[in-house]
Amino acid sequence: SSSSSSSSSWDQDGQKIDSCVVKLATSDDALAIDSNQTFRLTVSSDPYPNCLVEADNMYGAYYGLVTLSQLCDTSNTTAPSILEARIRDEPRFAFRGFLLDTARHFLPVSYIKRVLDVLALHRYNVLHWHVVDSESFPLQSQAFPDLAEKGAFSPDAVYKTEDLVDVVQYASRRGITVMPEFDVPGHGSWGKGYPSLMGCKDVLDPTNPEVYTFLLTFLKEMLEIFPSEYIFLGGDEVDTSCWLKNPEIAEWLQQHDMTDAELFDYFWQNVTSEVIPGLEGRKVGVWQSNKLDIKPTLLPEGSFGNVWQDPKMMGPVIDGGMPVVLSGTYYLDQDNSATAAGPCKAYAWQQTWKCMYQEEPFDQLTQEQWSSLIGLETTMWGEGVNRFDFEARVWAKAAAVAERMWSNQNVNDVAEAQVRLDRHICRLNLMGVHAGPIIPGFCSSDVDGEAW
Amino acid sequence: SSSSSSSSSWDQDGQKIDSCVVKLATSDDALAIDSNQTFRLTVSSDPYPNCLVEADNMYGAYYGLVTLSQLCDTSNTTAPSILEARIRDEPRFAFRGFLLDTARHFLPVSYIKRVLDVLALHRYNVLHWHVVDSESFPLQSQAFPDLAEKGAFSPDAVYKTEDLVDVVQYASRRGITVMPEFDVPGHGSWGKGYPSLMGCKDVLDPTNPEVYTFLLTFLKEMLEIFPSEYIFLGGDEVDTSCWLKNPEIAEWLQQHDMTDAELFDYFWQNVTSEVIPGLEGRKVGVWQSNKLDIKPTLLPEGSFGNVWQDPKMMGPVIDGGMPVVLSGTYYLDQDNSATAAGPCKAYAWQQTWKCMYQEEPFDQLTQEQWSSLIGLETTMWGEGVNRFDFEARVWAKAAAVAERMWSNQNVNDVAEAQVRLDRHICRLNLMGVHAGPIIPGFCSSDVDGEAW
Repeated sequence: SSSSSSSSSWDQDGQKIDSCVVKLATSDDALAIDSNQTFRLTVSSDPYPNCLVEADNMYGAYYGLVTLSQLCDTSNTTAPSILEARIRDEPRFAFRGFLLDTARHFLPVSYIKRVLDVLALHRYNVLHWHVVDSESFPLQSQAFPDLAEKGAFSPDAVYKTEDLVDVVQYASRRGITVMPEFDVPGHGSWGKGYPSLMGCKDVLDPTNPEVYTFLLTFLKEMLEIFPSEYIFLGGDEVDTSCWLKNPEIAEWLQQHDMTDAELFDYFWQNVTSEVIPGLEGRKVGVWQSNKLDIKPTLLPEGSFGNVWQDPKMMGPVIDGGMPVVLSGTYYLDQDNSATAAGPCKAYAWQQTWKCMYQEEPFDQLTQEQWSSLIGLETTMWGEGVNRFDFEARVWAKAAAVAERMWSNQNVNDVAEAQVRLDRHICRLNLMGVHAGPIIPGFCSSDVDGEAW
Repeated sequence: SSSSSSSSSWDQDGQKIDSCVVKLATSDDALAIDSNQTFRLTVSSDPYPNCLVEADNMYGAYYGLVTLSQLCDTSNTTAPSILEARIRDEPRFAFRGFLLDTARHFLPVSYIKRVLDVLALHRYNVLHWHVVDSESFPLQSQAFPDLAEKGAFSPDAVYKTEDLVDVVQYASRRGITVMPEFDVPGHGSWGKGYPSLMGCKDVLDPTNPEVYTFLLTFLKEMLEIFPSEYIFLGGDEVDTSCWLKNPEIAEWLQQHDMTDAELFDYFWQNVTSEVIPGLEGRKVGVWQSNKLDIKPTLLPEGSFGNVWQDPKMMGPVIDGGMPVVLSGTYYLDQDNSATAAGPCKAYAWQQTWKCMYQEEPFDQLTQEQWSSLIGLETTMWGEGVNRFDFEARVWAKAAAVAERMWSNQNVNDVAEAQVRLDRHICRLNLMGVHAGPIIPGFCSSDVDGEAW
């Protein structure tokens, strides 16, 4: 959201903005997803340049400086592109998330930092780190070393405790909260290191009290590393019938007169009563599919649901008592089949950003529900992504969605966005980011002497 | 096609193949698309290693050495993977094409060489260079300098004559024929430099005799640079009604009692009578859409049609008298919507290779027509591709199709191919090629110290 006035005229005297005063109302450097992210940016021309960024805190000021850098972009001109600017800006959504999947393919810490650099330029403020999944457990736990020792693809493909701290700090300096995901009771490869926790293939055993003490101990270790106000607990895609194939669980269910579906509820009741109270006030997030898997009432107030399939499911989840983040429309590995209008009708891949950009999430909600949509999230699921194709898959699409995350609801014209995005891709290419173009044209990076 | 026997046992003595004898039946180094590409590769173990590649000519021998290098691949093991091999191999299709589009985005010569290196590893033997199109004319002509001077995106974005010669020679040394495309009468940006040739927006004027002398002069210059037996003349997507908006052409049509559709035929009749006879025996290729745009009988015998939409159109084009190359199934910038079964049913982008791989082009033909399918072509249309996302778009899909181009018709099992392709992607990644993975897993390149 912005109210701005700027001038692109220029007096050709060759003057440049080589400094900008930053004024902060507070020196508080605690990062939170709902921090005040408002800034004012003023560039006045008499005398030129007189540059000022004002914000409540350093994170708001950061967005002011990102905006300044984009206004000063000279990729297609030799003259500065602003002479005067008076901008007040703040994000539409507090939660602007990007999902990074390091379970399907390992990404080195140096590469994750690269990802964070580029995300920050796009004003993303949440890295939803899908760090582990059924395929691998590349995260070191001091309390449970066998998780990584037996669960990682390779001893070299493990994020050690100091790596995790390093990533969190690097992200924080760019205004990005790292929200880790530890999916339970399925999708987690907990059993590679600790098979006694498992009820059946890839799913924890809710009838085993040790599961909850294990989770509490593990998560308390993670809290020390990840200061995020949210810990993401997944709950995704559990085949509850799998439990019935375990004779001990089947007997337990009979004794307790419970179905496998009820056992899933029982698991979350226990997480809420036995685990979450020990998490020092942290809140949790879970996935919500088209089936509304996890009853919102089973989780503590303040938990949120990430709607990863049809955006029409946002309403039922909110009505169930849970604010939502929408990711289903923003799958970067697909032709975003989860828009309200159905599959993307694009001739070719480079046009699929338009379908994501055009989607207005409020259209799926009543006005009363709007404030319960806390944000959007682009998801780079990693089945087909390693560091070699990562950027080509992510950009330009994640840049297009980033604009819808930040800008006013009425900034939604595809034709106008295409002009901005085309120029932005060139800017990314000149920085060496492997973003693919969206339309034919020329960028000076195309004739760069370096081949790739 | 291959008949082979090999053994993967290994005596652990640490012996390596450090040389291989190559025997050629002829020292002829003339490259042709239908060259004899057969080779025999023998590795015997007593004494080990005794390595021999036999072929008719250097290009066949090259494929033997590529095969040897892949058999020796040690990316996932420290031991050589072959002890003995007796292989006789030859391609299923003589024409194994890859379309490179440098009109929508310019690609530096150094990058094109990189592309050729990787194509050669996959046994591609035709670079269909879609060098110019409506968007830009990045090719220098000595006879018509204004084509590039007024048609290129930038003075730096021009392939000079020596660049073209360089690319042709570089490709030739890798067994790749560079078949240039100069699309007429539309899709060519001829008018940026020479507006008097144009009949209407982006389409040449068939009623202007100078058009044919221009084409002959231009193409004769190109023949000196490109030794390819085929010159591709396009003929694609001409809106013939555009001519009617030109009063002079409209009057000419009235005088000659001709429709705009007949003017399109007239153009090709003149190309056949006025231009092609001057091309020193070169043959031509043209696009064929679902409408059978260019009547095969209008072109000289030996011309071929590239079927770029529904593969079911191969039959009608062949029956019309023209052999075909199929590209419609192999659009690398799309969810390959042109398979016989319709759009690809894949959950995510990394799986779209399967649809291309499964397509059996002979299924669309009668057995009598089989020999008229001279090859397949993957097409990297460049609207959404520059050097930053090129490899991520191309591989793994172009590798999957390459196997169908080379191997026997019955080598078509997707599950088996997935195992090979997964390992191959790792091999490409270890070489630094930006190929995306197709399934979750680990490759030692994932923990490489270099970030990107």
